[in-house]
Amino acid sequence: MSLMKSEASKAGVTVDGVVFTVRDGTLQVLLIRRGRPPFKGCWALPGGFVRGDETLERAARRELEEETGLRDVWLEQLYTFGDPGRDPRGRTVTVAYTALIRPGPVRAATDAADAAWFPAARPPRLAFDHARILRTGLRRLRAKLGYTTVGFQLLPKKFTLPELQRLYETILAKGLDKRNFRKKILSLRLLEAHGKQRSEGAHRPARLYSFNLGRMIVLDGQIP
Amino acid sequence: MSLMKSEASKAGVTVDGVVFTVRDGTLQVLLIRRGRPPFKGCWALPGGFVRGDETLERAARRELEEETGLRDVWLEQLYTFGDPGRDPRGRTVTVAYTALIRPGPVRAATDAADAAWFPAARPPRLAFDHARILRTGLRRLRAKLGYTTVGFQLLPKKFTLPELQRLYETILAKGLDKRNFRKKILSLRLLEAHGKQRSEGAHRPARLYSFNLGRMIVLDGQIP
Repeated sequence: MSLMKSEASKAGVTVDGVVFTVRDGTLQVLLIRRGRPPFKGCWALPGGFVRGDETLERAARRELEEETGLRDVWLEQLYTFGDPGRDPRGRTVTVAYTALIRPGPVRAATDAADAAWFPAARPPRLAFDHARILRTGLRRLRAKLGYTTVGFQLLPKKFTLPELQRLYETILAKGLDKRNFRKKILSLRLLEAHGKQRSEGAHRPARLYSFNLGRMIVLDGQIP
Repeated sequence: MSLMKSEASKAGVTVDGVVFTVRDGTLQVLLIRRGRPPFKGCWALPGGFVRGDETLERAARRELEEETGLRDVWLEQLYTFGDPGRDPRGRTVTVAYTALIRPGPVRAATDAADAAWFPAARPPRLAFDHARILRTGLRRLRAKLGYTTVGFQLLPKKFTLPELQRLYETILAKGLDKRNFRKKILSLRLLEAHGKQRSEGAHRPARLYSFNLGRMIVLDGQIP
């Protein structure tokens, strides 16, 4: 450590998780209620300080499990936030990770007083600059719909185009034209076509598709 | 600072720049030769410690200008690297930024003993984990060709499809089929068509295009 520049060059390093799911037809984000200062009692993204012996990604997984009970979540690095003044405790740089998972129960633990899902587009007031981090995660997720198979974790292995369209509409929070959606999604060549499935109502049988994971573009993180 | 956890939670925070250009028909990356330990005399990405009063992006711009003379470069956050042991001086987290700029002269300054462009795919041995950071930058740049107008900074305002194809081939380091390239790039709707230009040789006049910046997808950073 002798060659490290002055103490002014050092900062606290934290990780935060922006974990999305689709529940009740809405895109939701996982938040915890802080059990201690600063921002005690305020909702925040799950996260905390990186330990000296762990990688950033491992710290993000550990904090997520400790605070919310979620395990084995595929996290992708989102963005790093380090503006001076973003943490009242002193200079703190946070590396944010993001994930899109199936809905499931969460439970508060360690320094989280509560853990719950909230509508991602209408969260409660958040601690630190977490509102900005959440907006960045939301923008990334929506952009990735257009060039990756990011949705594969939320659908059954085989699905119909109307099922996929409903998922996209939920994440984008807007309706999509059926013909345009069909044309656009097929032109991306992210899907493989399979046989037909008899529909339950009066509609014609719908073709089943699966994501072509071999064509998946992964910009950050690993394929699970 | 009284509520900051133990000293073990603190780390040095640095920024590094992965700055690409196309020169002599090759994708090149800007490197500096380190003027002091650790890795003294070794080539490295330009970068250094973040100061207490500056944002991460401002630090990246400052270090780039101080070490190489490059000013006003549009930097986009790339990825943050923080594995324990990546810096012999102690735990150091580095936030990497990337850019694709027009070729130009660079000069070494401050703690850089030299600054020069190198082939991005065949760099010299690099300090720290900078080879990994460079590979990450290269992967991101190549992936972004497919869904953004990342190339616009290297071409004249109006250009022909063969000119654009040569740029893509240089960055991807492989030849592309002319018909497939034309079909694919036009389907992305990133280009606007203009009038025709008389070619200099015996070829037919080629249509001119410009990038449609309004359709640009910016995932990180700002539009300049």
